[in-house]
Amino acid sequence: MADGGEVKLHGFWGSPYALRVIWALKLKQVPYDYLEEDLPNKKSSLLLQYNPVHKKVPVLVHHGKPIPESLVILEYIDETWKQSPLLPQDPYERARVRFWAKFADEKCMPAMKAVFCTEGEEQQKAVLEARETLKTLESGLEGKLFFGGETINFADVATGYIGCWARIVEEITGTTLIDAESMPSLDAWSKRFLELPVIKECVPPWDKLIELNSGFLQKYLASLK
Amino acid sequence: MADGGEVKLHGFWGSPYALRVIWALKLKQVPYDYLEEDLPNKKSSLLLQYNPVHKKVPVLVHHGKPIPESLVILEYIDETWKQSPLLPQDPYERARVRFWAKFADEKCMPAMKAVFCTEGEEQQKAVLEARETLKTLESGLEGKLFFGGETINFADVATGYIGCWARIVEEITGTTLIDAESMPSLDAWSKRFLELPVIKECVPPWDKLIELNSGFLQKYLASLK
Repeated sequence: MADGGEVKLHGFWGSPYALRVIWALKLKQVPYDYLEEDLPNKKSSLLLQYNPVHKKVPVLVHHGKPIPESLVILEYIDETWKQSPLLPQDPYERARVRFWAKFADEKCMPAMKAVFCTEGEEQQKAVLEARETLKTLESGLEGKLFFGGETINFADVATGYIGCWARIVEEITGTTLIDAESMPSLDAWSKRFLELPVIKECVPPWDKLIELNSGFLQKYLASLK
Repeated sequence: MADGGEVKLHGFWGSPYALRVIWALKLKQVPYDYLEEDLPNKKSSLLLQYNPVHKKVPVLVHHGKPIPESLVILEYIDETWKQSPLLPQDPYERARVRFWAKFADEKCMPAMKAVFCTEGEEQQKAVLEARETLKTLESGLEGKLFFGGETINFADVATGYIGCWARIVEEITGTTLIDAESMPSLDAWSKRFLELPVIKECVPPWDKLIELNSGFLQKYLASLK
């Protein structure tokens, strides 16, 4: 696979869920072809064919077989390319890691979206709730450098986007979701994770992320009128 | 572990998520102690200690270590007790199985709940949406007897509750969610799965399920007034 032709990733540059798949592939040094989907405008017929259920990125295609859903893809990557394992060996630790990955997607991201999509008093309430949820995520770190302890594992790769997207929401809405005073471990973890060279080099430019998400917000607010 | 003392399951008899953990333990013939939580009234201090994040059943406790979240528990059970494997060996098949388990929880159950909690025109719309979602679940069967092919696997155990809870919603609301004419594979699969002796013996009595869920609905409707 010198040309990387057997692994293809359908992604969108602004998607946190595609980003974590990219992180996993980079960490394992798996070569792949990247196919950018023009999500805000038109989904490709290949994407619709590969993910007819959700019609979303990311989709990993390996030897022609499509795998949708980013957390499912992360498990697939870890099972297929054994180097630099993401999941711990111990079943209890694996359960812990899967628990926090699920928590980030099911609780943290919706709570941050609620802040993003509201205004005034409603937003103030959403901020309090999001901060409580993020404090709960922090408890998963148990004072360690990473969810994986001294080094990153599946939970760091899966939840790492939270730190980045919290900053996006903060900058666009002028709120504070993660601060060093009340969430010291989460704040330090987030910066530590996003500063790792292999992680940092995959994150899109900050100004482009702000521009994209500001656009999403304007479009959403306009749709309410 | 002749007395089953090392494995404990905190459940609630009316919970579909506890039910699928029970199915997995029974299929693998893992002895366990069952601790019934009086969910509608008061959560035990042990449950709050074991699952402080979600405060929900099921929680599996193995050698004193708590594992919450039913899909995470199913993975743990399959990794810990290797007999009668639930997940296939092939990573692509494992991804397929995890995809449908996630789909049932994230799409089918919310769609059925929407039917349960609405009335009139709103309910009619919810029925159409739920039926579309269930047809999508049916596509995952690909015309086979079970998600696992000739025999059941992780996806059957994880999504098996859908057939049962669809019937509950149908009976209480007088709607039709799964019918043999438009969803022949899903309808046949659901009956076939729920008739397997090891599966059937764990399902609570029908009239008790109807009574419990009718009560939930009454309470919910009263809360809206």
